[in-house]
Amino acid sequence: MTSQISAEQFRQILHDGMPSGAAMPFEVVSLESGLAVLKLTTGPADLRPGGTVSGPTLFGFADLAMYAAVMTVVGYEPMAVTTDATVHFLRRPLAGAKLARARLLKQGQRLMVGDVAIAPEGQEDAPVAHFVMTYSVPPRKTNP
Amino acid sequence: MTSQISAEQFRQILHDGMPSGAAMPFEVVSLESGLAVLKLTTGPADLRPGGTVSGPTLFGFADLAMYAAVMTVVGYEPMAVTTDATVHFLRRPLAGAKLARARLLKQGQRLMVGDVAIAPEGQEDAPVAHFVMTYSVPPRKTNP
Amino acid sequence: MTSQISAEQFRQILHDGMPSGAAMPFEVVSLESGLAVLKLTTGPADLRPGGTVSGPTLFGFADLAMYAAVMTVVGYEPMAVTTDATVHFLRRPLAGAKLARARLLKQGQRLMVGDVAIAPEGQEDAPVAHFVMTYSVPPRKTNP
Amino acid sequence: MTSQISAEQFRQILHDGMPSGAAMPFEVVSLESGLAVLKLTTGPADLRPGGTVSGPTLFGFADLAMYAAVMTVVGYEPMAVTTDATVHFLRRPLAGAKLARARLLKQGQRLMVGDVAIAPEGQEDAPVAHFVMTYSVPPRKTNP
Repeated sequence: MTSQISAEQFRQILHDGMPSGAAMPFEVVSLESGLAVLKLTTGPADLRPGGTVSGPTLFGFADLAMYAAVMTVVGYEPMAVTTDATVHFLRRPLAGAKLARARLLKQGQRLMVGDVAIAPEGQEDAPVAHFVMTYSVPPRKTNP
Repeated sequence: MTSQISAEQFRQILHDGMPSGAAMPFEVVSLESGLAVLKLTTGPADLRPGGTVSGPTLFGFADLAMYAAVMTVVGYEPMAVTTDATVHFLRRPLAGAKLARARLLKQGQRLMVGDVAIAPEGQEDAPVAHFVMTYSVPPRKTNP
Repeated sequence: MTSQISAEQFRQILHDGMPSGAAMPFEVVSLESGLAVLKLTTGPADLRPGGTVSGPTLFGFADLAMYAAVMTVVGYEPMAVTTDATVHFLRRPLAGAKLARARLLKQGQRLMVGDVAIAPEGQEDAPVAHFVMTYSVPPRKTNP
Repeated sequence: MTSQISAEQFRQILHDGMPSGAAMPFEVVSLESGLAVLKLTTGPADLRPGGTVSGPTLFGFADLAMYAAVMTVVGYEPMAVTTDATVHFLRRPLAGAKLARARLLKQGQRLMVGDVAIAPEGQEDAPVAHFVMTYSVPPRKTNP
């Protein structure tokens, strides 16, 4: 199935629904129904000692990718909000481009659950962080 | 028991170990062994639509408070790192001063587990977010 | 505020809503609005090598206590279901009576979030396991 | 890479390290390095009202599959223990055979992180529960 939003529409939704995400230096790699892949180029301000990307930056990036994955199913819905998130940090997240791959595991009427893997570009089999997240979405009027 | 670090020392550790935390506009309210309370004054840049504090900001603040709680036990140890974190968002986090209360549940040789409640100042019984976090600490040479 | 159910009513709800819980050898220690304390006497069948209580047994006991805490607020509602749970195992759970203290952190119309600490009786400051759980409850007709 | 244990060896390890798992009516479907697939046939005793499989049963089954995945990498190590687990219940787990697919995301010297999807046999794209788990393993003497 195809995504209910385009990359252009996703950027517009961010302005309405998640400005902290809109401010991130990211690109949309792909959007399919229930699946979103984004790319982030981290800079010096995101680094901790030893040159690693900070946890809050990874959290924000994962949240952004999950938000995109939800929008691929529900379309324009800026009021979707995170209700819970679990992250495991797996490897030292060195500076450099990162891909976030967000995939929905459940598409409920109210609750969407998905996981997000963040990995260095070209090393998708060695993720630096893994998230599981739930989004709550307002009741939908039309059949999605 | 008393804390192994003072508020001044904690700010110094942040410069060495968590610059993203050092940049946050926070105050140390109290430090005891296994317990840290910090206060954050959020500003417009941290807000989402509807005037709520962003998830990554809350995550960063909780991580900072947990880092402080770990330091109250192990002392100066900038190399402590978060291995996992689970957050539940409980209420709309409106703008205004927030308190984070981080409490250690387990003080292991390698792994420290704690929870962190973030609440508006004066409304500690109505937290906006609740975290459980694990920190990994390097082996300690001396008996803590 | 007082609990919306008594210990007797809770046992009845279990028969209707959670038979696996009804089969556990537990006592209700106390029920208040948003807070439930249960006591479990574990037996040999629940033990792993080294004499520790198994993870699934602790999970089932925590789920039971959280279910009770939800019922203290919503009253008779066997259709409440767990949507997510996070557990951290903190210490070796040796055989012997255990207390589970479940406390609601959020009492929403649809979602209830709480944490549960399981500790040996008399050592409540040294929990063996800590849970955060979300329960989904059907919409309520009357004001609770 | 090939698994460090066979299905026969895994059953032996369970007797030494996880008797609650040994008692489950399961089959080993496949073992590869970092990946274990198990099959469970649930019976009436595992069901909640409405004919759904109980949460503790799913938890125990996921724990068993993750234990197997850890053993595929470290070989015989009955002292591996779960340190944290997060579960999201995704769909009603009706009675019938279930597959658990456990996959390691991180293979550290001390900590192993993996996720486990439990789905009805033949409907692997519609999981009923999703877990993320960490296992702590004793230091290994030989290079794995």
